[in-house]
Amino acid sequence: MTIDEFKNTELKVGRVLSAERVEGSEKLLKMQVSLGGDPEEIRQILAGIGKAYTPEEMVGKNIIVVVNLDPRTLMGEESRGMMLAATDEEGLPVALTVERDVSPGTEIR
Amino acid sequence: MTIDEFKNTELKVGRVLSAERVEGSEKLLKMQVSLGGDPEEIRQILAGIGKAYTPEEMVGKNIIVVVNLDPRTLMGEESRGMMLAATDEEGLPVALTVERDVSPGTEIR
Repeated sequence: MTIDEFKNTELKVGRVLSAERVEGSEKLLKMQVSLGGDPEEIRQILAGIGKAYTPEEMVGKNIIVVVNLDPRTLMGEESRGMMLAATDEEGLPVALTVERDVSPGTEIR
Repeated sequence: MTIDEFKNTELKVGRVLSAERVEGSEKLLKMQVSLGGDPEEIRQILAGIGKAYTPEEMVGKNIIVVVNLDPRTLMGEESRGMMLAATDEEGLPVALTVERDVSPGTEIR
């Protein structure tokens, strides 16, 4: 893969404003995520992190979102972006984040 | 961009084993980064983070690396992977990391 191809991927820091479980799923959390800007851009993002994170502990966290993917529908709910996570040795997701606090919407290169 | 196109990007957690400044550059750090495995895969990765991080404070950190990019040479030194960082409001880089500790080489999806 070349660096130019990689640069087609738009990654941004998002801040989780609220989160709840998706009914009928053990794994899926539905989050409202700020991507900053004026007016503020808020997107609904679904992520399969519910076995590792409660909705409550996600609120306020900085997450990393691929923002230029096609929307998709999971369990009847639309997700407009993909949250990045590692998968640990037990198969549980571990959220990617920033090592210091930054504003929502900050771009990653 | 489709999810399949995004999946061409291979992202892994790397652990910084050592780091030093690249002579003649204010910005560039040269790091030896473990990507885990047996035998352990260690790659030299250069990143323009030297105005925000000292070499000493990078050692031991979990960073996020695009591992399937073509190598490139910066200031005469080869970099075999690209460390991901956000850029804050002052233009300074902020490293991406994992929110909980994981083993070097852990894949991100």
